[in-house]
Amino acid sequence: MPQKPKTHLIILAAGNGTRMASEHPKVMHKIASLPMLGHVLKAAQSLSDQSTSLIDTTLVLAPAMKKVAEFAQNYLPSVRIAYQTKQLGTAHAVSSALQDMTFDDGETVVVLFGDTPLIQATTLSKVTALLKNNAKTGVVVVGMTPQDPKAYGRLVCDNAGRFLKIIEFKHASDAEKSISFCNSGVMAFKADCLQKVLPKIKEQSLNGEYYLTDAIELAPSYHFEVHAIEVPAEEVEGVNTRVELAQAEKRYQTRRRQEALMLGCTMIAPETVYFAHDTVIDSDVMIEPNVFFGPQVHVKSHVTLKAFSHIEGAVLEENATVGPFARLRPGTIIGENARIGNFVEVKNTTFAEGAKANHLSYVGDATVGAKANIGAGTIMCNYDGYQKHKTTIEEGAFIGSNSCLVAPVSVGKNAIVGAGSILTKNVAKDALAVARAPRKTFEGKAKKMHDLKSKEKVA
Amino acid sequence: MPQKPKTHLIILAAGNGTRMASEHPKVMHKIASLPMLGHVLKAAQSLSDQSTSLIDTTLVLAPAMKKVAEFAQNYLPSVRIAYQTKQLGTAHAVSSALQDMTFDDGETVVVLFGDTPLIQATTLSKVTALLKNNAKTGVVVVGMTPQDPKAYGRLVCDNAGRFLKIIEFKHASDAEKSISFCNSGVMAFKADCLQKVLPKIKEQSLNGEYYLTDAIELAPSYHFEVHAIEVPAEEVEGVNTRVELAQAEKRYQTRRRQEALMLGCTMIAPETVYFAHDTVIDSDVMIEPNVFFGPQVHVKSHVTLKAFSHIEGAVLEENATVGPFARLRPGTIIGENARIGNFVEVKNTTFAEGAKANHLSYVGDATVGAKANIGAGTIMCNYDGYQKHKTTIEEGAFIGSNSCLVAPVSVGKNAIVGAGSILTKNVAKDALAVARAPRKTFEGKAKKMHDLKSKEKVA
Amino acid sequence: MPQKPKTHLIILAAGNGTRMASEHPKVMHKIASLPMLGHVLKAAQSLSDQSTSLIDTTLVLAPAMKKVAEFAQNYLPSVRIAYQTKQLGTAHAVSSALQDMTFDDGETVVVLFGDTPLIQATTLSKVTALLKNNAKTGVVVVGMTPQDPKAYGRLVCDNAGRFLKIIEFKHASDAEKSISFCNSGVMAFKADCLQKVLPKIKEQSLNGEYYLTDAIELAPSYHFEVHAIEVPAEEVEGVNTRVELAQAEKRYQTRRRQEALMLGCTMIAPETVYFAHDTVIDSDVMIEPNVFFGPQVHVKSHVTLKAFSHIEGAVLEENATVGPFARLRPGTIIGENARIGNFVEVKNTTFAEGAKANHLSYVGDATVGAKANIGAGTIMCNYDGYQKHKTTIEEGAFIGSNSCLVAPVSVGKNAIVGAGSILTKNVAKDALAVARAPRKTFEGKAKKMHDLKSKEKVA
Repeated sequence: MPQKPKTHLIILAAGNGTRMASEHPKVMHKIASLPMLGHVLKAAQSLSDQSTSLIDTTLVLAPAMKKVAEFAQNYLPSVRIAYQTKQLGTAHAVSSALQDMTFDDGETVVVLFGDTPLIQATTLSKVTALLKNNAKTGVVVVGMTPQDPKAYGRLVCDNAGRFLKIIEFKHASDAEKSISFCNSGVMAFKADCLQKVLPKIKEQSLNGEYYLTDAIELAPSYHFEVHAIEVPAEEVEGVNTRVELAQAEKRYQTRRRQEALMLGCTMIAPETVYFAHDTVIDSDVMIEPNVFFGPQVHVKSHVTLKAFSHIEGAVLEENATVGPFARLRPGTIIGENARIGNFVEVKNTTFAEGAKANHLSYVGDATVGAKANIGAGTIMCNYDGYQKHKTTIEEGAFIGSNSCLVAPVSVGKNAIVGAGSILTKNVAKDALAVARAPRKTFEGKAKKMHDLKSKEKVA
Repeated sequence: MPQKPKTHLIILAAGNGTRMASEHPKVMHKIASLPMLGHVLKAAQSLSDQSTSLIDTTLVLAPAMKKVAEFAQNYLPSVRIAYQTKQLGTAHAVSSALQDMTFDDGETVVVLFGDTPLIQATTLSKVTALLKNNAKTGVVVVGMTPQDPKAYGRLVCDNAGRFLKIIEFKHASDAEKSISFCNSGVMAFKADCLQKVLPKIKEQSLNGEYYLTDAIELAPSYHFEVHAIEVPAEEVEGVNTRVELAQAEKRYQTRRRQEALMLGCTMIAPETVYFAHDTVIDSDVMIEPNVFFGPQVHVKSHVTLKAFSHIEGAVLEENATVGPFARLRPGTIIGENARIGNFVEVKNTTFAEGAKANHLSYVGDATVGAKANIGAGTIMCNYDGYQKHKTTIEEGAFIGSNSCLVAPVSVGKNAIVGAGSILTKNVAKDALAVARAPRKTFEGKAKKMHDLKSKEKVA
Repeated sequence: MPQKPKTHLIILAAGNGTRMASEHPKVMHKIASLPMLGHVLKAAQSLSDQSTSLIDTTLVLAPAMKKVAEFAQNYLPSVRIAYQTKQLGTAHAVSSALQDMTFDDGETVVVLFGDTPLIQATTLSKVTALLKNNAKTGVVVVGMTPQDPKAYGRLVCDNAGRFLKIIEFKHASDAEKSISFCNSGVMAFKADCLQKVLPKIKEQSLNGEYYLTDAIELAPSYHFEVHAIEVPAEEVEGVNTRVELAQAEKRYQTRRRQEALMLGCTMIAPETVYFAHDTVIDSDVMIEPNVFFGPQVHVKSHVTLKAFSHIEGAVLEENATVGPFARLRPGTIIGENARIGNFVEVKNTTFAEGAKANHLSYVGDATVGAKANIGAGTIMCNYDGYQKHKTTIEEGAFIGSNSCLVAPVSVGKNAIVGAGSILTKNVAKDALAVARAPRKTFEGKAKKMHDLKSKEKVA
């Protein structure tokens, strides 16, 4: 049971994100099918799982952000929400979070950002360990060396490499602007240090805001040392525009693809495979180019996923083959050695072992028994315009091509449905059912029609 | 109304482009679904729209290039075509363009290339402004610093950075070859300067051609100064092979993707979305990976475009959802909140508000009323082998799965068509129409067939 | 007829490749649809085709690798298999290969690796020529300068650039580790040199293995000089993980795409087109983004291949148009000017000139005559659950939409099949066949159903 002093995580997410040019709050924009805020909450959860300390997490939002609060509480029920009534800067936001908080001796506070989604739990462990292991250290700043240092604040160090202060870009001299070591914004505090310096942070004359970075210059007055660590910029660069959102998505995907390859997944073109945040790929899976995973997919060993497939909410059992051009929607289970072929959509359906739907079919709200065969062009008519109904196809049944199964309906074990049949009533075990109009043939009539139509066309 | 002295644009496009290894003229190869020449004409048109001067545009072609002339006159009806009877170099090509031209005082001539498709109107403005604002300047050369300077001519400057001359690569010393500042070919002239120097350009002994770049050395004799400006190489590097065509396409797409992101479009993987030259994307649109746009598409706000979709000639109204695996062809309008799902092709059809075709359908030459539902596997039989006919589905109609609508045919308001029906005649408002063969069931017959076929297979 | 002394190629492929995290032997993992080993065998075959010498190829495998042996003998029937009973290092593996080999004067031995798939025949020619043209040279090492030199052995040269020795990474000093010139593993020997030094190679105390690289230090004792050549690292870097497999695939694809572009194929986004090792593309072919080629495809001149297509085992005759969203499977021939459209699957079928299947169809085990038209939603029911049967559609026939053709069945010249028909018997030339249930209409019944269902739904 966690015993050591608590770590308090404060996630700042009250900003509007106007540069996203969006009606949605910035932190709700998604990476790998999960809002950015979800990724930060996931890092918090992951820290909590690994840590011997208690972790508590507070999210700072603007009052109007009810939907964000709802998402966060749904994703991490233990999260505490604090509202920042006015947008008066990062120090003010942290104050809003601290309002109802009490601290015990030796506790730490880590300030995170909802728009810095790729932060890793290991970085959080590192900064809290630094504070705990160094009695004098009051603040740890997480720095980075981004490819383009833009207008980030610069971390000024002395010749011995000791961190001295953060200089805001707009106040920096040219020499200071040439510093490549930048402030990511992420900071960790001893709780008592934070409590002392926070009330001393002054309003910026320019815009009336309170900056948390001012804590660096104030801490030494209270006999606290300040330190900086460096993490890869990819992990802590913030997202302010959709260009940066796309870049963060790419970095996330690159990380996931490398992991999947190293765990024994073959991808012909890894850069064309898109994972969701929770995709699970077991060993010796083969993925052709251009496969897109939505949330909640588990692909088990020896599955082959062919090109141009779109998979969400599905479990693919061992040795299943899916695609090319397959779409699996939520509630799908594809059994061992089962096969889903091209232009086939499956929704809320279980295929048992060895069952097949190889061509141009819609299979929805159904259960398909072992070794059953769904012919090309088969449609499950699960929707009557008002409600959805179930279809049951039992083991070994053979559904002829271009059939319609009007649900609710069932086809018994080893039964056969003739091609082109429209099935509105159940078919018994071992029975053959055919619904087929008698054919009429008119000898020579096609020729007459050709002649007539050709004339019409000319006319 | 434009008043200032005219700007004459001359676009050189008579070259064969043998390195394209193609039967088609080089400038007709496309970037973003528009021939390269079209991009240059578009820059000309854009300059004309922004400018207070009159712009006139002359295209120089080889006599055999009738189809190119046709394309150009269709794209920019005001374009004047001049034919260069022999391929005798750039100066000769410009002479061909000048033959029937007269100039007023203070006019300028800009020489462009049909195979330099990414040139921007702002660059054209810049060079003409330079000429107009500097009484002594007779020629402005557009230079660039390409990553690989290849065999481009080099722009030689003095120590003060003043442009002196262009040295052809094959005549350059090693020192000159090490110059990274290169000639893009694009040049602008005061008309009187051009008229004076052009006749003085001498034939190259090597190949009998006349080079426009020789104008640089001749201009000072007529008391004209020469200047060079630099623009990004991406904008003015020419296209000579299909490798370079693909590179130009990529640069164009990168530019368009950045613009779309900044205007508020979310793309999970921008590098997999291909725009046409005229694609319009409004704000808060969401595009999954792998979407291809052909010409004439307008995507309005809050539309979701799912992966693996191919869209051309279509308007997507607000909040519409399209894909994955959707194909929209010319003449398509998808109404507000309407939905086009997977493996659905739509052509020359209007879907009204909230109408749906979610699965495996072909909808062609039709109008689909508000909230109408097209069931899975529905086919509009619009073609009788000779002509196309129209289908009308009115508001609230429900077309059962796997139906065939043999056009011309209409389904009235709120009518229902039973699954699997083949409809050759109209269905009235509120009516239910079913065409379905009676079903025959043979108990146990499937088992007998299984037994028989299994024996046959073994035999 | 080849006359000069024989070249013996020895391909080492007995390693387990544990870092692949796979149940399959490493060399069977594929690049461009061909196992890595196949690429090395292809280089051997290509050397043989170009060379005036006889080439013989020996593959060294572990005893359990029966499937690898089978693949190799199938791919290159002349290959000789040697089994290495224990995994005792590269020198031991070469000894295994030499056991039953005899050498004539002046013969050479080249040692290759099954996991170095991108080796080029030109490199093999180069090293054998070096040995043949330099009487004193006993060994040639193929070096490279990889971007990341990892733990590769380093090639130590003297100040004059003469190759001295290979130093294993783990024995290298820091100065030696800073050498960027690395050992690729590929080595060529005069046969008599190899026979002399091989027995002298000593067991490594660390792991009991025998290293072929030790030959470099031994050769001078027998008055043989050693040389090193450099080839691009992309060609000879080995594949040890699936990350490296994906990188090798990318390098192979990049090479193929450049070749195709230079030969006159237009690709809007070459980086999204995946070739198989044996794909043939003729001139003036147009390929939209996202096309995947499996093995055995030939695309002839003026074919247009639209986006999102998956093609294997198919010949596309001149001016054919395929896609978007087309899937062609083995045994497919698409005739001149024929068209395969969206969501269409074709298998083991020949389309004659001008035939069309434009929308949502499955065409399997069929022949389709010239200018025949397969309507949208047509299904060939070629499989009865036990066996596949053939469908024949003759010239000019018109198959109405949503038809089922239950094979074996034929449709005669210029015959018409009505939309929605299920065809179980042949249709004669010029005949019209329709199988269609009579339609029943119930006026106002849809309204009653709407009212009822709405109430049910509320309830």
